Amino acid sequence: MLIYQRINRILKTATTYNRCRWLYCSTPHQQVSHYSHFTSSSQQVLGCRVISSWFSRAFSSGGPQPQYEEDQVDPFSLVADELSVVANRLRSMVVTEVPKLASAAEYFFKMGVEGKRFRPTVILLMATALNVQISKPASEGVVDLFSSELRMRLQSIAEITEMIHVASLLHDDVLDDADTRRGIGSLNFVMGNKISVLAGDFLLSRACITLASLKNTEVVSLIATAVEHLVTGETMQMSSSAEQRSSMDYYLQKTYYKTASLISNSCKSIALLTGQTAEVALLAYEYGKNLGLAFQLIDDVLDFTGTSSSLGKGSLSDIRHGIVTAPILYAIEEFPELQTVVDRGLDNPENMDLALEYLGKSHGIQRTRELAARHASLASAAIDSLPENDDEDVQRSRRALKELTHIVINRTK
Amino acid sequence: MLIYQRINRILKTATTYNRCRWLYCSTPHQQVSHYSHFTSSSQQVLGCRVISSWFSRAFSSGGPQPQYEEDQVDPFSLVADELSVVANRLRSMVVTEVPKLASAAEYFFKMGVEGKRFRPTVILLMATALNVQISKPASEGVVDLFSSELRMRLQSIAEITEMIHVASLLHDDVLDDADTRRGIGSLNFVMGNKISVLAGDFLLSRACITLASLKNTEVVSLIATAVEHLVTGETMQMSSSAEQRSSMDYYLQKTYYKTASLISNSCKSIALLTGQTAEVALLAYEYGKNLGLAFQLIDDVLDFTGTSSSLGKGSLSDIRHGIVTAPILYAIEEFPELQTVVDRGLDNPENMDLALEYLGKSHGIQRTRELAARHASLASAAIDSLPENDDEDVQRSRRALKELTHIVINRTK
Repeated sequence: MLIYQRINRILKTATTYNRCRWLYCSTPHQQVSHYSHFTSSSQQVLGCRVISSWFSRAFSSGGPQPQYEEDQVDPFSLVADELSVVANRLRSMVVTEVPKLASAAEYFFKMGVEGKRFRPTVILLMATALNVQISKPASEGVVDLFSSELRMRLQSIAEITEMIHVASLLHDDVLDDADTRRGIGSLNFVMGNKISVLAGDFLLSRACITLASLKNTEVVSLIATAVEHLVTGETMQMSSSAEQRSSMDYYLQKTYYKTASLISNSCKSIALLTGQTAEVALLAYEYGKNLGLAFQLIDDVLDFTGTSSSLGKGSLSDIRHGIVTAPILYAIEEFPELQTVVDRGLDNPENMDLALEYLGKSHGIQRTRELAARHASLASAAIDSLPENDDEDVQRSRRALKELTHIVINRTK
Repeated sequence: MLIYQRINRILKTATTYNRCRWLYCSTPHQQVSHYSHFTSSSQQVLGCRVISSWFSRAFSSGGPQPQYEEDQVDPFSLVADELSVVANRLRSMVVTEVPKLASAAEYFFKMGVEGKRFRPTVILLMATALNVQISKPASEGVVDLFSSELRMRLQSIAEITEMIHVASLLHDDVLDDADTRRGIGSLNFVMGNKISVLAGDFLLSRACITLASLKNTEVVSLIATAVEHLVTGETMQMSSSAEQRSSMDYYLQKTYYKTASLISNSCKSIALLTGQTAEVALLAYEYGKNLGLAFQLIDDVLDFTGTSSSLGKGSLSDIRHGIVTAPILYAIEEFPELQTVVDRGLDNPENMDLALEYLGKSHGIQRTRELAARHASLASAAIDSLPENDDEDVQRSRRALKELTHIVINRTK
């Protein structure tokens, strides 16, 4: 049996198993006992390990890739060559005449520390899914120059998005006084806060210049709005009132701003630059938005569970910093007394243990996963609603985009 | 005699007197003695006081304004009403749904702390100088709607430029750990570094969104390049080698990036948005560039002299922070041994006294003022080279732009 089929079967079993266990636990007591049982299930642990190892590889830029059958697609392999082109162009785009600024700006674009390149992958797949082909080398036939030029414009959106994403990381790391990022020292840790703020500003301005070169002011506006959303989301997180912190609406709005707006507006930009209808542009936007939301919801689960399936094995970094996410919000709905525990501050280990106990006996983790799955389904449905197209590349890219929604909700890191 | 004529005569006398004294002092000894004499001359001191007081008023946003004859223009009064419109729009443009971000973003746009509004003044004057009239109220005749819409687009350039300028101030204050700005606590001092970085990013993205709404990608590119120049200039200043710090070319390049690029590209944007020829766009750019350079050169002089005419009475903040500016660079050309004094560090009071002594016996201050005057002349010449136009408003705005070049080089604060 091929690896992919095996994993698919495991995934299906794990999901069904998981869903059944959670769906039929209605009382807090049942929840606790089932949760304990769930984490000690050897079958489940084995399944998780296999999935975890596979997704680790799927998300890493190097190392062996999983094998796929012909009708299956690995989203990351599908755009691997083009991602290299984008990465090279990114490195050349952030060159400046001032050596220190150049070093700072290219810090996270260097080989080996480019990160998962999740956003460029989505954007390039969306480009093909909307029927903008990568031009074939001249030896394979006549090169369609228009198509090639258009493809380069779409690659620019991937580059711009990545520059903005890295700029936001640089500024976030200054704000959070972070000392590591992508497995190496954060730029502020290595070169200081000043150069990190400046390098972030530089990347934003370079992204804006590149945007202007696309000569489409609607796209400039979309992407600039996404930058504003990144800032708004960050500020909402750091300056919320107690009431806002306990509101699911506020949480989802902040999550959209911080994680989903950039990718959704980038996907929409791809549609606009390729002259699609408003309806298709909206579908592209909906895909990006729902994928982004699903991604963040699972991130919030992983903050509690880590690579294991146990509560409290994650870094717990959000909750320690007073950032209340979906699992706790759902838990508070079931156990309102948890709110006072959270308000007392979870930097106190006793409060933290108590909060995790409440979370464990609640449906918080389960409901967050279910919400993530709903958004993943919506993303998938958006792809299914695109105008029919029989082209093989288009079909393959659409399958890859849908595959990404599964990867996002089933990942363990 | 009207005040303006009196001031003009004083200025003329002071300039001639000053130039003669400096031009005919060839030895260091003569320079020192003449410099002392210059500062003790009661006539000169009186002249300086009158000029200082007048320019203080000219630069302040409130208080009594100087009186002008009919053919004379006060640049700031000429656009005062429109500046209020711009200020109100700016305040409404930085509103967001997150109260803390809104407070931070509007911090320097509030009544009384808007600063000199030098850039918006130049931009609005340039708009009229290129024959884009302010539409008259309907009661005075038929309103030219096209003209009115175009004028609002040009006002947007003033608003965008001011947002970018304030964003750069917010980030600069974080970089420099500054605790005051415009006579009040700096934003980082009052609300913290995090919100200052975010508010700067927010203003940049809001500026970019407003830029996109103008639907002219060449203008987006120009202004985004100016933002990049702000960053490049700041980085050049903080990461220069000893060799670069002693290079006049490096200093002028950095000065262009930090001070002149934004205003020159904004002026050029006005020309582009009004459909001027490439030649006129270049003249507008040249005006802004040379005015900006003259402004900064005088700033560098004032860092040594302050509101008095004596060396060492300024804040000396640049030189204390190891930032070598034109006066010292010229002094090093005459006295190469000053370089070693500077390299030893001027945070040591003995080195500082020695450096000021060298500067006093050199032509450093004089040559910097002369260079500023040359750039002011070039700015003025750019205005004279604009296509002829007999319209009274156009003529008046052009005179005001030229008047600004005098104000810039003769200011004492």
